[in-house]
Amino acid sequence: MRVLGVDPGLTRCGIGVVDSIAGRRARLVAVGVARSTHTESIDVRLLAISQQLDEWLDRHIPDVVAIERVFAQNNLSTVMGTAQVAGLAMVAAAKRGVPVALHTPSEVKAAVTGHGGAHKEQVQRMVANILGLSQAPRPADAADALALAICHLWRPAGILDKADRYQMTPAQRQWAAAEQATKQNVRRLH
Amino acid sequence: MRVLGVDPGLTRCGIGVVDSIAGRRARLVAVGVARSTHTESIDVRLLAISQQLDEWLDRHIPDVVAIERVFAQNNLSTVMGTAQVAGLAMVAAAKRGVPVALHTPSEVKAAVTGHGGAHKEQVQRMVANILGLSQAPRPADAADALALAICHLWRPAGILDKADRYQMTPAQRQWAAAEQATKQNVRRLH
Repeated sequence: MRVLGVDPGLTRCGIGVVDSIAGRRARLVAVGVARSTHTESIDVRLLAISQQLDEWLDRHIPDVVAIERVFAQNNLSTVMGTAQVAGLAMVAAAKRGVPVALHTPSEVKAAVTGHGGAHKEQVQRMVANILGLSQAPRPADAADALALAICHLWRPAGILDKADRYQMTPAQRQWAAAEQATKQNVRRLH
Repeated sequence: MRVLGVDPGLTRCGIGVVDSIAGRRARLVAVGVARSTHTESIDVRLLAISQQLDEWLDRHIPDVVAIERVFAQNNLSTVMGTAQVAGLAMVAAAKRGVPVALHTPSEVKAAVTGHGGAHKEQVQRMVANILGLSQAPRPADAADALALAICHLWRPAGILDKADRYQMTPAQRQWAAAEQATKQNVRRLH
């Protein structure tokens, strides 16, 4: 299975592609960053990111696109652009018939480090470990995109298929409850 | 000049096309709503809206696309979808080389009724008046899209061109100040 992870952002949008391999490991296929110039108008910037996402999907033909779930309560100065780039990534996948999965930052941390409250540095170190790299790719957005892709590979099976929500195992139910709690916490913080 | 107005929304996205005509009036070209089915996944819904926006732009070939400016502080339950649809409208315009203008709800109300705090019903009545219709188009999203397009036609000249910001007339400066105040108010409310 090949997953293309997207850490959405208007200035730097992390993109990472990984393949699953036997023994709970993953292989790095490609990693990079789609960029836009902050002096351009927002429509031109969104178009630039959209075109780069299209190129990545056409080049790597993923089975799934995993995107960070953006909350309305995130950083107010950047949340609109981030949400819009996430939307563009969803449309890029949908128009190719590629399924989309959204993962919260806590889910990503939990999947990669075993701990939903892990620091950014721990996540990056684990990403390098899992992929057999001597160090995490730079910038951080690129490594975060890989973490998202790994999170999707290693998530509890079936958790993201709506149809399966009604036939969850206890472990899956715990995961779903944790996901729900995260969302409510974020709302409460607001 | 032909303006295509977009009142962004994931369930109903209002779209209205108007031409400017002599004597501070405007002619209705077309009005409607792009829809998506709420039982579909978000990626499929965004793709559906995106395709309908593409069709509207190809059919009506506007000179400008005017979109409601979405604030992070808007209705939390819908703001992400609204922002994403606004982003799709921007990309649809940018990939055709059509300039994009963003207008706040207060700007739209002020342009159409002369009063930035006007009620929704006043705006709709004025839209019908301006376009010579016996009543405002339904649903409200469709009429709001027309109001956006009219707002763009009737805005103080040059206010939206970045290059012109440095050579504003006093009236333009007032408008810009009002725009700025609106944004700060929204922030303060938050």
